[in-house]
Amino acid sequence: MPETNERVVLSRPLQGIPEPGDFRVETAPVPEPGPGQLLVRHQFISLDPYQRAAMAGRHLSGRTPLGAGDMPPAEAVGQVVRSRHPDFPEGAYVRHFGGWQAWALSDGERTHRVDADAAPLSTYLGILGMPGLTAWGSIIELAGVQPGQVVLVSAALGPVGSMVGQLAMWRGATAIGIAGSEAKCAILTGELGFARAVNYRAPGWLGALAAAAPEGVDIYHDNVGGQMLADAFTVLKLHGQVILCGLMERYNDPAKSKPLDLALPILKRAVMKGLVVTDFEDRRDHFVATVAPLVRAGRIRYREDRVEGLAGAGELFSRLMRGENVGKALVVV
Amino acid sequence: MPETNERVVLSRPLQGIPEPGDFRVETAPVPEPGPGQLLVRHQFISLDPYQRAAMAGRHLSGRTPLGAGDMPPAEAVGQVVRSRHPDFPEGAYVRHFGGWQAWALSDGERTHRVDADAAPLSTYLGILGMPGLTAWGSIIELAGVQPGQVVLVSAALGPVGSMVGQLAMWRGATAIGIAGSEAKCAILTGELGFARAVNYRAPGWLGALAAAAPEGVDIYHDNVGGQMLADAFTVLKLHGQVILCGLMERYNDPAKSKPLDLALPILKRAVMKGLVVTDFEDRRDHFVATVAPLVRAGRIRYREDRVEGLAGAGELFSRLMRGENVGKALVVV
Repeated sequence: MPETNERVVLSRPLQGIPEPGDFRVETAPVPEPGPGQLLVRHQFISLDPYQRAAMAGRHLSGRTPLGAGDMPPAEAVGQVVRSRHPDFPEGAYVRHFGGWQAWALSDGERTHRVDADAAPLSTYLGILGMPGLTAWGSIIELAGVQPGQVVLVSAALGPVGSMVGQLAMWRGATAIGIAGSEAKCAILTGELGFARAVNYRAPGWLGALAAAAPEGVDIYHDNVGGQMLADAFTVLKLHGQVILCGLMERYNDPAKSKPLDLALPILKRAVMKGLVVTDFEDRRDHFVATVAPLVRAGRIRYREDRVEGLAGAGELFSRLMRGENVGKALVVV
Repeated sequence: MPETNERVVLSRPLQGIPEPGDFRVETAPVPEPGPGQLLVRHQFISLDPYQRAAMAGRHLSGRTPLGAGDMPPAEAVGQVVRSRHPDFPEGAYVRHFGGWQAWALSDGERTHRVDADAAPLSTYLGILGMPGLTAWGSIIELAGVQPGQVVLVSAALGPVGSMVGQLAMWRGATAIGIAGSEAKCAILTGELGFARAVNYRAPGWLGALAAAAPEGVDIYHDNVGGQMLADAFTVLKLHGQVILCGLMERYNDPAKSKPLDLALPILKRAVMKGLVVTDFEDRRDHFVATVAPLVRAGRIRYREDRVEGLAGAGELFSRLMRGENVGKALVVV
């Protein structure tokens, strides 16, 4: 066991879109677990848009803005190296909220064993993890997608969006993805099997969206909010559903946020449902047991955008918050 | 039959809250019905907040702003005096979109017979009319209120709000009303039987709202939008429902409107449903047949704010759009 832990902290409070220089790596001793604690050696650390809001103190997972020297929150997967907790033997694999660091203690709170044989370990942070469960909660539990329906999803190549679309297809629906580049759209319609994909950064994108959904959309899963949500209403069918799941548009700068014009849901008689993934914790085992075989069989696919080493975490997070990542953002420790 | 018709027209395009001087009465000949038409002598003309948006060209019922000399739209009830339409014999009572005038032609479109014996004629513009059907669509059809639930409604003494609360109570729920004066609140908790009522114009109103709903609210019927909707979220239970029905807050001046912060429905895991009353047209007969006996029996009550004669229509509409009316706003012709 090494004697030093590496961790990423803020070098200054964030302003707007994060830059790599907003973060620095520092070292500290590897901690010793006390009674009831376990020590986890991280293998993958999850970078997610919600962490930006948490760093600003604007998220359920973090209500106090982080300053210089503070470590951002993150879920991570790794192996238990020392344990003084009866539920987590040494050698077991777990996911927990360990933060942006190589080693972390856990007291068992929000810590769960994962089956490293059932699926690649990294997927427990992505399509089989919180993002995947989010998609399950959205499209299966809240929206109750039906065969033949049309499902539209923004941030479609991310771990939530790609699972939303693929779960919809698995249930016999048609998936349309929104992403921020032609390259992402090509992956969506190629490798991931989406029926259509639309690049929201291309000129005339609203026309392309309308052309992609000529019959309209039954369910829109929104990861973005703001103008994207307003644009999605242009193709929503009367009585269509909107799952409100993420606010990417405002995580960097809430002052630039565009709130929802209520005339849109009224005129479309829309049903909008707010989603917080923790509500579906009791569905997690069922979700993993159902979807892991689909992942192993290659029926559900995913992309990862990996960076090797904690030194690259800030740069990857910056790309993530500019929408320039391709797939699930992961730090490989 | 008189030879002249009276009607109210705009004396100038509206700016902000309407003033009595924005309207003038003019005369015209009483028209003769052509083939397939009927002539209706209005007895009551309905004034409703949506008409303000229609006058500005911002409503489904009117997409072109009205200018000087244009007559505002309105539903009215009255008697068929001449008929060249097979479905509407002379002497029958009808409701139709006849506008702010004493006499109006109809070609049968959106014209319906009403039973003047089943309930007072004026109620077909209020609690048994479009506002009442709106409440039925909201609280019975969309929200599916259950016994023991708590229902909160804004503009609670208006025809929609008072019916929302009373239908909720009829179904065994608890009704809490929001209104703009202590006098209105006293009517709500007295004559109309609401469990509690809160004056949103009183200092410390958010505290009063919280005190009025200590267990939280299962269903909020929103007639207002804007800050009122945001305030209602403070007492909404997790997974509570919000029926989005009206945008009073913006009808006078959309530039001052406060759109919805999407974090509110997400954090409350709210289910929000947009309502347009025309969707419930096929439920109207069932609604009237069910509720008219309750009205006759005094189990469902209502207030009307009447003005005699078309010359007073502008003043009543101005009070309505300032929220100073007490009950359903009606012009008695």
